[in-house]
Amino acid sequence: MTADILIRNARPMGGDPVDLVIRNGRFYTDGGDRPAREIDATGHIVLPGLVEAHTHLDKTLIGMDWFDNRVGPTRNDRILADRRAKRELGIDARRQSARQILQTLRYGVLSIRSHVDVDTEIGLANIEGVLETREALRDLVDVQLVTFPQSGMLTRAGTLELMDAAMKAGADIVGGIDPATIERDPVRHLDAVFALADRHAKPVDIHLHEPGELGAFCLELIVERTRALSLQDRVMVSHAYCLDMLEPARQQVLIEALAAERIAVMTVGSPSAPALPLRLMRQAGLAVASGSDGIQGTWEPWGNGDMLERAKYLAQRNGMTNDADLAETARICTFGGAEAIGLARYGLSEGDFGDLVLVPARTLAEAVALTPQKRTVIRRGRIVVRDGVPADDLPHIA
Amino acid sequence: MTADILIRNARPMGGDPVDLVIRNGRFYTDGGDRPAREIDATGHIVLPGLVEAHTHLDKTLIGMDWFDNRVGPTRNDRILADRRAKRELGIDARRQSARQILQTLRYGVLSIRSHVDVDTEIGLANIEGVLETREALRDLVDVQLVTFPQSGMLTRAGTLELMDAAMKAGADIVGGIDPATIERDPVRHLDAVFALADRHAKPVDIHLHEPGELGAFCLELIVERTRALSLQDRVMVSHAYCLDMLEPARQQVLIEALAAERIAVMTVGSPSAPALPLRLMRQAGLAVASGSDGIQGTWEPWGNGDMLERAKYLAQRNGMTNDADLAETARICTFGGAEAIGLARYGLSEGDFGDLVLVPARTLAEAVALTPQKRTVIRRGRIVVRDGVPADDLPHIA
Repeated sequence: MTADILIRNARPMGGDPVDLVIRNGRFYTDGGDRPAREIDATGHIVLPGLVEAHTHLDKTLIGMDWFDNRVGPTRNDRILADRRAKRELGIDARRQSARQILQTLRYGVLSIRSHVDVDTEIGLANIEGVLETREALRDLVDVQLVTFPQSGMLTRAGTLELMDAAMKAGADIVGGIDPATIERDPVRHLDAVFALADRHAKPVDIHLHEPGELGAFCLELIVERTRALSLQDRVMVSHAYCLDMLEPARQQVLIEALAAERIAVMTVGSPSAPALPLRLMRQAGLAVASGSDGIQGTWEPWGNGDMLERAKYLAQRNGMTNDADLAETARICTFGGAEAIGLARYGLSEGDFGDLVLVPARTLAEAVALTPQKRTVIRRGRIVVRDGVPADDLPHIA
Repeated sequence: MTADILIRNARPMGGDPVDLVIRNGRFYTDGGDRPAREIDATGHIVLPGLVEAHTHLDKTLIGMDWFDNRVGPTRNDRILADRRAKRELGIDARRQSARQILQTLRYGVLSIRSHVDVDTEIGLANIEGVLETREALRDLVDVQLVTFPQSGMLTRAGTLELMDAAMKAGADIVGGIDPATIERDPVRHLDAVFALADRHAKPVDIHLHEPGELGAFCLELIVERTRALSLQDRVMVSHAYCLDMLEPARQQVLIEALAAERIAVMTVGSPSAPALPLRLMRQAGLAVASGSDGIQGTWEPWGNGDMLERAKYLAQRNGMTNDADLAETARICTFGGAEAIGLARYGLSEGDFGDLVLVPARTLAEAVALTPQKRTVIRRGRIVVRDGVPADDLPHIA
């Protein structure tokens, strides 16, 4: 599975061609024997595995009946429709998460952080399903599970206890959701989330759609708790639309406060949602990640999970057309995501895990702009996709 | 080339299955002999040919060296870079327009309105190049040429005369460009554009990026001239961002004024540009079209010209996720475009041209959300693309 392999003429992140060697699942630059297997990467650029930093593996409808979306326009309409769908459509979290993972493997997505619903109707069923998939596909992809109170935590008694049980069952991160507009009590919600994370010594990832100054206040509460519990590098805020809804000076202060506590921000680049100030965030040294959010579910009918296409959306939403900007959005979907979700041994350097994606493109900007499909994906030295075609030995999902 | 053909179990616009017959290049519902050739469309929905209502065929860089985009952020930066590219990159309008047309044929784009640059540096070279391509590919696609003063008309003496010459050479529509921010004299610019159109008895299509009330004022000037010259159904405004930048009451008045003169509006649904109020526009009875704008050029590095993907962008930009809304954006990219650019015999009914696209999808919404690639495209009864693969007898572009 992890036989040595030589990748000739690979251009890391679109740079000059080099030969890469993977031995025992790691990159090596030593002068040992030339591996028997080799791939000619001429005409391709090479990236480390794409990082999906925010999705909902348990709720995709890939491969199921078409969902006739008649859901109302508010977030609450969508949460209700989502909960009804879980009851009525028979969404099997184990099967569906596997389908999404195998679909996105073709694009080169090798690390995934997934929020997974926990609520008083389904209990831990979705957590257990995604945990089963994680185990079954562990040779192909790394999965982090966030225990996610989609239907509310304070507002639904028993949810916090279920989240605690989910952490004991194997979830990796404590999730939170709009502390004010959904939970109606930002302090108590965030206190509960951070306390649970502290008790399990685990990171935090909070869905924050709160607008304007309400969102800014919630960010301040998150900063305060991160500092108090010394959770630097362990907290991510997902969406954080408020950062695009403030006066420039206020925006700058908040970005610096997040950077000071090394709190990461995840943005999807949705065409209809506020566009986060990517340049300012980067200048402040903030870790920025991106994700597909839901793919083909009841929230949104589209999505393929290709994180190179996601880089394109990030650029498009921000009106960026320069090559340097497109390269930056590609970094958000690779190194940025890895930093934000805390991946170890990530990269194309000696000692890093031997994971990579070859993309037929002349530059990183071209890879983002045109998202070529005939990619080759290598996981720990194993070729799992070759020129867009999955290997024969990948598992079949029942 | 136009042998009769029967398409069985086709679902027009996702409706109930019917059998469609094309005889002599037109749809027929008569009870004549069963055509010898037939296609089983089970599992597919059928749309009439996709309508590309706004692109720049003469400026795509498809198949050329990668353009390292370092262009500045303003519209003027981009116009200057665009003009320099025409001088320095050797963009052959004949070849490049053919490349784009053959690329988008695969998606089912069978009607195209293209703006084509006319200026005092290149003269009519781009018009002549695209006219050559139109003639060479006339059996595959209908092309309308707009003579487009990209670099300014009032501001560059001699341009208006070149536009007049372009109309004499075979261009179909008189173009205009930001009458205030670029041309610095909205009344004189629009008077010249409308006078040229009147002299040639041809339609008008104006690029209007002007913001807010400045844009609204320009729209009023366009409405007044359309009324004065009785150009109803012959005028299109492209982009019209100002419609998203006004108070609701003012917005409504302008939309009604456009509808009263049957002036069409084209919107691209760009993620970083204002989102036009599609629902209000439709309620007012406005003809709404969409287009890809530039594909893989110096303005924007991306774009494939797939008008089903464009329907997805329209929905995404407007925050629409319901099936009914996605179906509406699909209509904008078919019937809406056809109405807006004045196509005759367009549709799937008796007597219409025998043009269609089969898309493997269960519903129109799924076709928009997932943009399946294995489409079959029929032009005047001739199969030009089968399951995503172009026919062997398509022309080769040197």
